Amino acid sequence: MNPDLASERQTASFSVEKLTAWLDGGVEHTRIRRAVVEAIECDPVFSRENQYFQSQNERYEAAVRKAVHLQKKMHEMGWTENGPEFKYIYRALSGDIAFLLHRIFTRSISVLGSNKQIAKWIPLATQFQLIGSYAQTELGHGTYLQGLETTAVFDITTQEFTLNTPKISAMKWWPGDMGRSATHTVVFAQLYIHGKCYGVHPFIVQIRSLQDHSLCPGITAGDIGPKMNFEHVDNGYLMLQNVRVPRENMLNKFCEVQPDGTYVRWGSQKINYFTMTTVRISLIADEAVIPLMKACTIAIRYSVVRRQSKLKPGEQEAKILDYQTQQEKLLPSLAAAYAFHFINDYLQELFDKGYKEIQRKNFDTLPELHAFSSGFKAMVTQYCTSAVEICLRACGGHGYSLLSGLPSLYTRIVASCIYEGENTILLLQTARFLIKCFMAASAGQPVPPSVTYLAAVKPGKCPATNTSDFLSPDIYTEAYQHVAVRLTGSTAAKLQDLIQSGVKKHDAWNQCSVQLVQAAKAHCHYITVKNFAETVEKLKTKAGIQKIMKHLCDLFALHGIFSNGGVFLHDGYISGAQMDMVTASYLDLLAVIRKDAVPLVDAFDFTDKSLNSALGSYDGQVYQRLYEWAQKSPTNKQMSPAYERYLKPLLHNTLSKL
Amino acid sequence: MNPDLASERQTASFSVEKLTAWLDGGVEHTRIRRAVVEAIECDPVFSRENQYFQSQNERYEAAVRKAVHLQKKMHEMGWTENGPEFKYIYRALSGDIAFLLHRIFTRSISVLGSNKQIAKWIPLATQFQLIGSYAQTELGHGTYLQGLETTAVFDITTQEFTLNTPKISAMKWWPGDMGRSATHTVVFAQLYIHGKCYGVHPFIVQIRSLQDHSLCPGITAGDIGPKMNFEHVDNGYLMLQNVRVPRENMLNKFCEVQPDGTYVRWGSQKINYFTMTTVRISLIADEAVIPLMKACTIAIRYSVVRRQSKLKPGEQEAKILDYQTQQEKLLPSLAAAYAFHFINDYLQELFDKGYKEIQRKNFDTLPELHAFSSGFKAMVTQYCTSAVEICLRACGGHGYSLLSGLPSLYTRIVASCIYEGENTILLLQTARFLIKCFMAASAGQPVPPSVTYLAAVKPGKCPATNTSDFLSPDIYTEAYQHVAVRLTGSTAAKLQDLIQSGVKKHDAWNQCSVQLVQAAKAHCHYITVKNFAETVEKLKTKAGIQKIMKHLCDLFALHGIFSNGGVFLHDGYISGAQMDMVTASYLDLLAVIRKDAVPLVDAFDFTDKSLNSALGSYDGQVYQRLYEWAQKSPTNKQMSPAYERYLKPLLHNTLSKL
Repeated sequence: MNPDLASERQTASFSVEKLTAWLDGGVEHTRIRRAVVEAIECDPVFSRENQYFQSQNERYEAAVRKAVHLQKKMHEMGWTENGPEFKYIYRALSGDIAFLLHRIFTRSISVLGSNKQIAKWIPLATQFQLIGSYAQTELGHGTYLQGLETTAVFDITTQEFTLNTPKISAMKWWPGDMGRSATHTVVFAQLYIHGKCYGVHPFIVQIRSLQDHSLCPGITAGDIGPKMNFEHVDNGYLMLQNVRVPRENMLNKFCEVQPDGTYVRWGSQKINYFTMTTVRISLIADEAVIPLMKACTIAIRYSVVRRQSKLKPGEQEAKILDYQTQQEKLLPSLAAAYAFHFINDYLQELFDKGYKEIQRKNFDTLPELHAFSSGFKAMVTQYCTSAVEICLRACGGHGYSLLSGLPSLYTRIVASCIYEGENTILLLQTARFLIKCFMAASAGQPVPPSVTYLAAVKPGKCPATNTSDFLSPDIYTEAYQHVAVRLTGSTAAKLQDLIQSGVKKHDAWNQCSVQLVQAAKAHCHYITVKNFAETVEKLKTKAGIQKIMKHLCDLFALHGIFSNGGVFLHDGYISGAQMDMVTASYLDLLAVIRKDAVPLVDAFDFTDKSLNSALGSYDGQVYQRLYEWAQKSPTNKQMSPAYERYLKPLLHNTLSKL
Repeated sequence: MNPDLASERQTASFSVEKLTAWLDGGVEHTRIRRAVVEAIECDPVFSRENQYFQSQNERYEAAVRKAVHLQKKMHEMGWTENGPEFKYIYRALSGDIAFLLHRIFTRSISVLGSNKQIAKWIPLATQFQLIGSYAQTELGHGTYLQGLETTAVFDITTQEFTLNTPKISAMKWWPGDMGRSATHTVVFAQLYIHGKCYGVHPFIVQIRSLQDHSLCPGITAGDIGPKMNFEHVDNGYLMLQNVRVPRENMLNKFCEVQPDGTYVRWGSQKINYFTMTTVRISLIADEAVIPLMKACTIAIRYSVVRRQSKLKPGEQEAKILDYQTQQEKLLPSLAAAYAFHFINDYLQELFDKGYKEIQRKNFDTLPELHAFSSGFKAMVTQYCTSAVEICLRACGGHGYSLLSGLPSLYTRIVASCIYEGENTILLLQTARFLIKCFMAASAGQPVPPSVTYLAAVKPGKCPATNTSDFLSPDIYTEAYQHVAVRLTGSTAAKLQDLIQSGVKKHDAWNQCSVQLVQAAKAHCHYITVKNFAETVEKLKTKAGIQKIMKHLCDLFALHGIFSNGGVFLHDGYISGAQMDMVTASYLDLLAVIRKDAVPLVDAFDFTDKSLNSALGSYDGQVYQRLYEWAQKSPTNKQMSPAYERYLKPLLHNTLSKL
């Protein structure tokens, strides 16, 4: 154990084990999680040891191997999809596994298929008699589903749909598991009957032979090539030329083409949005918060092991975490990891409630849930991405080595800002909801509980009179609320002014969109701060933990005010003098939290294998590990052919010329 | 030609060719640059076509091949190191070449070596009778040179130095060209004579045989393994065990160990800082501004080809650049690329002047030059890195494909925030200079010309009364100046208060460091805005260009105020009402500049080969190129062994079970 790291653990102000259990939701959850991690990590098939040395082809092969092996493992361990272990498996594998789109394929049939279709396809999928994918996005079309160009024309004579890719921009592009693995996929295409377009519908299409995996007639498919990360996924392309599927292959829970070509639609399609909504919520923990927790663990452990320059003359070089500038990079990121862990709990609860309502056919909460899932997906992924980048850069050169684990965390998390809804578009969805609610509230109409605060437009001033006032959650939560109301209100006013001055509605919306995005962010930031404060409040019986969580909550809130001061100062709600108090409180907190920084990341309870980092191991043997690991790199496996081919002739030719 | 891209070029408000020539510094420079680019790009050895598909080993080999070939090419073309073509070669190769550290090796001998050493080693290096590297950084030591642990002990009996790596943290780590290529290196080590330490000195050490390239006795060396980018560079590690070099191998322009062990020091070492200073300045263009220009070119061309959702009901899907939120991502980044191109010109001029003074043994300007090079290196690399990331994310999923070129630009530029001085440390250097000058100015003492503004502390208010006032360079330049003075002044005051209240000087410095960094950034931002405005002012005779440059200057300045409002609002210099004017002016400008966005990136004059991007080509054939390129990926070369090994057993086993 590196003594510089060990010493950090001796002075923890709280019990790390108790904090871990609390974060997990109880000791029993911690026990189950650790059992899953242990079972996965002791199995060599799941090893990620050589990951940073592997090519895209090797990563893909390993992901398929793991996915196949996982089927055996689950059977062997008695884990089921509905069991308490399931949610920890993906985390334990760090998501480095194939067939994730196979699950989306299955889910889409369960949600969009008729009972007959479910009875036919789900068992085939569950038993891996086929490998499924989900082909929605096209080369030229992402967010705007109505713009999809793939066509499915109904042929009455054969009772089939003929699917085609009319032009290159209509090629399916990005679907995971499709480039090399899938035998089947759900294709979204514009339905045509008797020359009339009925909009986008889903069709089950076989793309590869179940016997020899060759492409089916009319199918062109392959891998879309190298990406910034996700080398383990065979994101694919797909072109269809007169591919015929039987009438029963259109998923028909909500609509059907009858044998005579009559188009019938029934039921509510709203539930579709709920599926997308749940995907957005479920990715927050796995794809944003956990990666940020890992990055914080790596960067903070490294920052107490790395010594650089002298803080005090005559002493040894200082731990870099003792520099205020380093604290200012890492500790707000750490506080954010906690803040988002808690907002995730909050969102899960909200969605569990919403789901129960929806099962009772009450869709009233859908707009609110959609606004929440959009806004928080965008806000959390954006914030976590920036924070992971900060962690990477805070580790200097060693952070730039793949062996630190940080580059992979970054190149992967940045994708979360784009997939499942590009963040700017999502924030505009949230903004649309806010503006609507703001107008309703202003007109005295009822609004969903999460946005009743929008009705409370008070000009007012922040009542804080000294530095310690800013350690009061009421003070800063109200400041966040004030800003969220002000930004929503002023943008709503601008929107109305533009429309009243004759600008068309869609142009007015576009001219306000930068400010609408700001308002949506302010709303999510406010809810996050409020929820953090309430979470701390509820902790009353766990004094040691409550104290440090209170500090983190304060830090998260004050960092937001400090680094985004303009919106708080704009109307004088916070004065310049008060901003100085915020700054003083904020900087003081850094030094306080710094003392518990290592215990606070230890509580995330990542194993060395799950961090897969030469900088972040529990024992802090950074330099030894970097050296040992580098020696295993393929770049050190043998003398490069470059020597014989280029270096030797260069060195020897010139030698001989002399 | 994609018609959506073509139409953007028909309405340019200025001559692209004239703007290009102006950016190059005249038509003759444009001609030379294009000739170099043409010669490099038509030579297949320099092709970067397969770059995104290559492994680290392949990238290294290609870089060596290109470096060796470049020697021939230069001879063939009549290009010399002092010729006008030289500065364009690196740019034309996109820096994707080996032996860059060989040049630093040569330069360090020229600067730190005696005439005798220069006469011996420079010809050997120039003729590639050896391949050099530069071994300063250690596994445990970067910025703080005095902390280096490698030792060089003088042995009077043999008249040699014995070099050792006493522990693992002392291992040399990171030197480029050292992992696999170099035969020699300059090792920085603590000099010991008769048991007394004389500090860090440079020694020429041979590490590999000139005959068979095997490691020399006592040498352990290799490649440090995979990194986030720079796969083409063999960054290396080096351990020394009783490696003996003759007394003449210590570079001894400034100090010498005489045969009897007497240590003699003479001359000024200040010139060393100047070398580091010039490296920081020279990387600004090549490693930060040009990559940002490329990223803007790719993202802006793509944004007029990509259509997504409807802006107006009933019309076709809109070009994504017509959305205000997309303009807000890309156009300030574009304005920044121009701003930093001009600040680079400014810095080059400043350094040319400084260099002339230094040649006359006048070192007075060194502190100012050091502060400038540190601050601007940090500010520009940081800003450009963020802007490249914005460009990447603004292209959605396709930006995430390596084939877009954007991931590589990002993973490479982010390193520029770390190497040649980590940015936070550099900004603190600038801040130290600012505080010193501020104190001197306050005491009525003379200060360097660039910081005389610090003496002009006026409380005052911004005199703007309407939106268009904020299009006046005087108005916004003064606002930036006011903020820079205020932040420097308030931090200086805090520093003094702390010291007067009994806090030790180094602790006080640390407690102010977050604010010191802010002050340094504000200073650099101010100078950049001021220089942009002055550059536009000087353009009087080129009306068409001046008009659009004025818009970009306004946009750069107002974007900074809009997105960093807190520091302007803090003391009421800008009021909330004025900030609304800033916002209105800023958003209006986006729509104005959007019209010329494509001509503005065309003027950077990148060839398709130099962009190496499926999204950014001149003809805008995005989808066709993505598809063609993806098909060439190694992931599509053959059926993956994963099928026979895992997929087939999975699919068939379960089939057979039924």
